[in-house]
Amino acid sequence: MPPSSPSLTTQRLETLSDGVIAIASTLLVLDIGRLEVHGNDDLLDAIAQRWPSYVAYIVSFTVIGLIWVAHHSMFERISSVDRPLLFLNLALLLGIGFIPWPTSVLAEYIRADNVNASIATALYSLTMTLIGIVFVGMWAHLVRHPEHTTDTVTPVQLRRSLRLAYVSPIVYGATIGLAYVSPYVCLVVYAMLAVYFARGPSARALLAAQEATAGSDSGSEA
Amino acid sequence: MPPSSPSLTTQRLETLSDGVIAIASTLLVLDIGRLEVHGNDDLLDAIAQRWPSYVAYIVSFTVIGLIWVAHHSMFERISSVDRPLLFLNLALLLGIGFIPWPTSVLAEYIRADNVNASIATALYSLTMTLIGIVFVGMWAHLVRHPEHTTDTVTPVQLRRSLRLAYVSPIVYGATIGLAYVSPYVCLVVYAMLAVYFARGPSARALLAAQEATAGSDSGSEA
Amino acid sequence: MPPSSPSLTTQRLETLSDGVIAIASTLLVLDIGRLEVHGNDDLLDAIAQRWPSYVAYIVSFTVIGLIWVAHHSMFERISSVDRPLLFLNLALLLGIGFIPWPTSVLAEYIRADNVNASIATALYSLTMTLIGIVFVGMWAHLVRHPEHTTDTVTPVQLRRSLRLAYVSPIVYGATIGLAYVSPYVCLVVYAMLAVYFARGPSARALLAAQEATAGSDSGSEA
Amino acid sequence: MPPSSPSLTTQRLETLSDGVIAIASTLLVLDIGRLEVHGNDDLLDAIAQRWPSYVAYIVSFTVIGLIWVAHHSMFERISSVDRPLLFLNLALLLGIGFIPWPTSVLAEYIRADNVNASIATALYSLTMTLIGIVFVGMWAHLVRHPEHTTDTVTPVQLRRSLRLAYVSPIVYGATIGLAYVSPYVCLVVYAMLAVYFARGPSARALLAAQEATAGSDSGSEA
Repeated sequence: MPPSSPSLTTQRLETLSDGVIAIASTLLVLDIGRLEVHGNDDLLDAIAQRWPSYVAYIVSFTVIGLIWVAHHSMFERISSVDRPLLFLNLALLLGIGFIPWPTSVLAEYIRADNVNASIATALYSLTMTLIGIVFVGMWAHLVRHPEHTTDTVTPVQLRRSLRLAYVSPIVYGATIGLAYVSPYVCLVVYAMLAVYFARGPSARALLAAQEATAGSDSGSEA
Repeated sequence: MPPSSPSLTTQRLETLSDGVIAIASTLLVLDIGRLEVHGNDDLLDAIAQRWPSYVAYIVSFTVIGLIWVAHHSMFERISSVDRPLLFLNLALLLGIGFIPWPTSVLAEYIRADNVNASIATALYSLTMTLIGIVFVGMWAHLVRHPEHTTDTVTPVQLRRSLRLAYVSPIVYGATIGLAYVSPYVCLVVYAMLAVYFARGPSARALLAAQEATAGSDSGSEA
Repeated sequence: MPPSSPSLTTQRLETLSDGVIAIASTLLVLDIGRLEVHGNDDLLDAIAQRWPSYVAYIVSFTVIGLIWVAHHSMFERISSVDRPLLFLNLALLLGIGFIPWPTSVLAEYIRADNVNASIATALYSLTMTLIGIVFVGMWAHLVRHPEHTTDTVTPVQLRRSLRLAYVSPIVYGATIGLAYVSPYVCLVVYAMLAVYFARGPSARALLAAQEATAGSDSGSEA
Repeated sequence: MPPSSPSLTTQRLETLSDGVIAIASTLLVLDIGRLEVHGNDDLLDAIAQRWPSYVAYIVSFTVIGLIWVAHHSMFERISSVDRPLLFLNLALLLGIGFIPWPTSVLAEYIRADNVNASIATALYSLTMTLIGIVFVGMWAHLVRHPEHTTDTVTPVQLRRSLRLAYVSPIVYGATIGLAYVSPYVCLVVYAMLAVYFARGPSARALLAAQEATAGSDSGSEA
């Protein structure tokens, strides 16, 4: 076991966070809603016309999955929680728990042939921007208070994590404006951002941390 | 490991409580509901007019988060559970699980220009008052039965926790009446109470307990 | 640590069960539904007339809480899971997850002034009877296969647990018929049964097991 | 403890998966929906006519339960997670979280006396086929990267697991076509497949792994 193992509160906070993340992602399915097909209408048509709901489900489920990766990756490096971290994390959960709502608005209005499609997309981008800002706040706090991180984390790594955390609110923030140009281009940006994060530093750091843990485990048992 | 580590039942009860808390807070988003915008109506207007739902979501999510802090802080000091604690805790979960309903009533009727706004606010205050009373009951039980607390907890601390637990039902109880004067002033009181608890003894005790655990951990490993 | 500690699968099955139990109990609140008050109608009236929903919420939340106690108490004595136990437990979860539906039917029709009130109550009783039968099946399996229980459990205790497990399906089964006499008397029987279980052997066994664990813990550390 | 114990990330991924699985199965009950009985209509009739909802609930709850068994059985043999496994697992959760929707479509349209019954059934089969394909992808990845499995797992066992994983997408895939012959025959195939899996290799492997763990536990403590 490393010298500075996470405290009970850190573990409980991760458990609570995982709970909210799991529930928020699973509630997304409720937004797809009932199909209303009468008499001899074709169910296949009704299913096909509901495509924005499936896209929205996949986009938001993936985003929440990537938030889980980023959150887990961050807490791998946190050894204790102080008050600001505790409440920044609650703010993060408040944002994650809110995701199903802009998702359903996006699914319902992206096909509107007026400005409402842009408004729905901008609302979605705004939600993601705010969540990204909370992540920046958490990393900024850790940079200023490295005593809350595990011993293996260096100040250089923390500053690098903070810089990388800016990517999400900046790109999502830009799509708030882009939504008024083309909602569909925003969907493409969301997908590109998801691919970036899936290939990117959080996932990499998480898997590296796992390697390190495995390494120290076998080392301590050898 | 401290001599009186929490029993399996205590841990399981915390897990169940965390589950209910995580779900209740995440279900809040379902109460925001679908927007109904037809033809060329402005979606932005519809989103803006739904502001009481966002306020209610934020207030209740924050309250549930603070209940989690208070609950976790209490269980940090509990080493074993007896029958009254078991069922007081179930009563607490029953109250927490109920929160989404008065929240949705509050969001829907706070703008009503008649007495219904006061009634909805009073219902919300009543729910919170009852939850606060259960907390008082739990601390009162621990004061009378200190054998269920960990060895590091003194009677003085327990009596102090009990006194502090009275704050919540007294203030929320007062807002039941205040709701008939002004529902909006109640919202302000809710926010002030949230700030008080966020800065207050539960959060402080939780973070202190974490320090202590970290201290004893490093001590036992030194 | 006792010589036959529960296996990983037993722990995971408890975690899954706790998840379903926590979610089923928290979903109950969704059945209370939106109030519809128009213009100057009194919200207080609307809230008061919804009383069967609150009673149903409290009854079902309490029942699910007691099922959690009974389930936890049973798994305190299980050291490993075989195929029948695995699938009996899934059948139990299937029943628990179903509870919100008969609860909402009960809440909606218990005030009907015709046979529908009896039918709704009988449906609720039937659901609980089936859940009780699965519990009987699990204890009966443990009586025949004591090798799946922890070393401290005696055959006499297992047979006693099996006998006590019959109480629930027998009494709930009787209320299926009683529902056609008086649905309200059924509610009273439900409440009496809840009190019986809260005071009864499951809760007692659970708390005793906790004592024993605490005892053996301090023993092994002394 | 075996030399290559699962890493923290593996455990967290199992916890997240269990959360999504527990929630998806419990959300199924929301699809049964409210009964609408007016005046002197018979509630018993209304309950009886809703039979496809109960069948769909039971089928999907059982399927999700068996997915849990298969998932748990797989992770018993995984010692560390790499990027493809991480994202294949998120894809799996995306599929599991989606199950409530095709379930509700199936329940609503299987009695339609036109092609819509077939379409609803085919949609359900398609969802299950895709989930099965993700399982195949996970086992195929483990066959190519045995360094992520525990030391006790042999290449022969992994290839056998991969071969067996093909059963689910092949049979469910076949029912996509079969749905246009007879939706009811598909229900029978679903039931047969559930029995096959309940008796089959995943459940067997899981229980065997438990035996092995218990064995090594007692071995290391002897």
